[in-house]
Amino acid sequence: MLGNFTYCNPTKLYFGKDALGSLGAALAGYGKNVLLVYGGGSIKKNGIYDKVISILRSSGKNVYEDGGVMPNPTSEKLAEGCERARAAKADFILAVGGGSVCDYAKAVSVSAYCDDDPWEKYFIRMEDVDADTRIIPVGCVLTMVGTGSEMNGGSVITNHAQKLKIGHVFGENVFPKFAILNPEFTYTLPKYQMISGIYDIMSHLLEQYFSGEDDNTSDYVIEGLLHSLIHSAGIAAENPTDYEARSNIMWIATWALNTFVAKGKDTDWEVHMLGQAVGAHTDATHGMTLSAVSLPYYRYILPYGQAKFARYAVNVWGVDKAGKSERQIAEEGLDAMEKWMRDLGLVMNITELGVNEDMLKGIAKSTLVMEGGYKTLTEDEIYNILKASL
Amino acid sequence: MLGNFTYCNPTKLYFGKDALGSLGAALAGYGKNVLLVYGGGSIKKNGIYDKVISILRSSGKNVYEDGGVMPNPTSEKLAEGCERARAAKADFILAVGGGSVCDYAKAVSVSAYCDDDPWEKYFIRMEDVDADTRIIPVGCVLTMVGTGSEMNGGSVITNHAQKLKIGHVFGENVFPKFAILNPEFTYTLPKYQMISGIYDIMSHLLEQYFSGEDDNTSDYVIEGLLHSLIHSAGIAAENPTDYEARSNIMWIATWALNTFVAKGKDTDWEVHMLGQAVGAHTDATHGMTLSAVSLPYYRYILPYGQAKFARYAVNVWGVDKAGKSERQIAEEGLDAMEKWMRDLGLVMNITELGVNEDMLKGIAKSTLVMEGGYKTLTEDEIYNILKASL
Repeated sequence: MLGNFTYCNPTKLYFGKDALGSLGAALAGYGKNVLLVYGGGSIKKNGIYDKVISILRSSGKNVYEDGGVMPNPTSEKLAEGCERARAAKADFILAVGGGSVCDYAKAVSVSAYCDDDPWEKYFIRMEDVDADTRIIPVGCVLTMVGTGSEMNGGSVITNHAQKLKIGHVFGENVFPKFAILNPEFTYTLPKYQMISGIYDIMSHLLEQYFSGEDDNTSDYVIEGLLHSLIHSAGIAAENPTDYEARSNIMWIATWALNTFVAKGKDTDWEVHMLGQAVGAHTDATHGMTLSAVSLPYYRYILPYGQAKFARYAVNVWGVDKAGKSERQIAEEGLDAMEKWMRDLGLVMNITELGVNEDMLKGIAKSTLVMEGGYKTLTEDEIYNILKASL
Repeated sequence: MLGNFTYCNPTKLYFGKDALGSLGAALAGYGKNVLLVYGGGSIKKNGIYDKVISILRSSGKNVYEDGGVMPNPTSEKLAEGCERARAAKADFILAVGGGSVCDYAKAVSVSAYCDDDPWEKYFIRMEDVDADTRIIPVGCVLTMVGTGSEMNGGSVITNHAQKLKIGHVFGENVFPKFAILNPEFTYTLPKYQMISGIYDIMSHLLEQYFSGEDDNTSDYVIEGLLHSLIHSAGIAAENPTDYEARSNIMWIATWALNTFVAKGKDTDWEVHMLGQAVGAHTDATHGMTLSAVSLPYYRYILPYGQAKFARYAVNVWGVDKAGKSERQIAEEGLDAMEKWMRDLGLVMNITELGVNEDMLKGIAKSTLVMEGGYKTLTEDEIYNILKASL
């Protein structure tokens, strides 16, 4: 736990099969005008929309709607959402959906009364939000698991004209006031989306793990979370309605990216930068962009952080050290991870996501370079990692 | 993650060598009258008292003092603290010390304006504190690590006349508003106190681990925290000023008992009930009362939770399973734990804490019986466990 840091996470979580029953109480302290934000309409098919509307009505709220949030919310959609929030004089934004819907709700929260272009201010210039910024409070009813957006200040927005997909983390006051986490709400998700979310969680954990050389409690906690995730992912892939497995995955997702495990340690995030660049050029599913680039990236940086990759191999994948060099142990860990990824059904290359060789230069150009990992990449190195991911 | 639960932990943590520099800002939103609560005066010797006073004065606060909080704060001292808090018209209680001082500050917080006998209301009848209860907000500057009191609503008070030491957990509004965690503030602590605190942390983790039969993410997280604790404890015992080890231990202590790992799972707490009964009869150091009774308790309940004890042996102590029965594996785990405890220098029997055979019936009588463990104990069983702990 090196360095100085503060930790504060004010989001209140309501977890379990009866969690939605707390929505009325959770909203009690806020004003009457609620902007209900959701995605493509699956919540209308699975009945969650009706349940939420019924609770809002019986709580005496005026409901305004902003549907059609896309999997990679765009800067144009953000502008539209700000208009709707202002027109509704929204006192509260209720996001019902997955990470994209929660991310979008937080972006609207800080942008609705912003006197500048929100894309430029918050995503290009990455300006902070402080206690004086006028925001609209947000709450979440989660229907898809992975991003951790339900308990953090993060938001990822895509600008197609600029071919950029950028994430920014807002301050404590933008964290959702509450999140309703009912594992059963994730049952109807197609398997492709479920395992994509599982890999998003895995990547959050690994990108915070593969960084830093200190001996840090967070690394041990991450190993614990990885063990639980790997175990429950296997059960959920076989039986998507196994409540225990789905509930563990939901809980891990929240804790993988609510700032806890990042405190007092370095973090990397280059896999997310690579994946988000692929996403900006293809609109592919977020978690699959991460799975498709991860192993070429990790195999490339392995020599720069070999001891940590060897620790990962032994502590997470149970690789037997006897008679092997540190390099061999480290490589066997990534081989074990690759087998697990293939068995789970993850996308293992960016070709499958619509990338071809002609696009690589452009994707490399829009990949942000992070400095927390074991190797700070050059544009050439990024190009080569993307090429190895084809 | 079975069952329905809520999670909310509003305490803001300032961590690191410069953490005290945030005290002024942390107090800014509260009134001028600060009741400074501390223990036997070690903070006057190591300079922390002077630093805190200087910050309070330069922040324009009126400082009132309530020193002399004993290691096991008594119901009489609590009554005195309530008087002082009322006389000072305290707007805020700043606890500077270890878990006892933080516990005591929270007890004063809820009791100062209580219209009943606080001991009867909160510790005997264990009544809840709700949002309407008039409380005095609390903040902590931690100088001793172990109890986790800096980020939870718990408070343990001893009534010597009744020979009872009882802990109660208050609601969210009683959680400290902030905690200042500077690992260097714990350097001057005698080794006996340091390792006592380490075992208190270990016990918090184990009492939440050895309960329940579900497959729960918390069990994996606890295993991670145990690995880090065991690793850092060894380093700190050799070199008490190893910042990395002491900072990891401080961080683990907070997360071991801030409600996170208890969510969605059963917990036991019988070791704390046994230890607190020993404490009520001897005034012995808290962590040592736990270490002295743990192994006789765990060896007694092992057959009722054998699979979990075997998992513990393998995942935490690296016991090799090959060719052994589950029972043998489980027992070897406790043997490995015993060796680690002895090497660390923990007290391994209650005789050393001042207990003799004549006292056992009385201690057994004042031991509360918990129902979350693998075996709900009878008074005879408690007596036998205490006898095996002599």
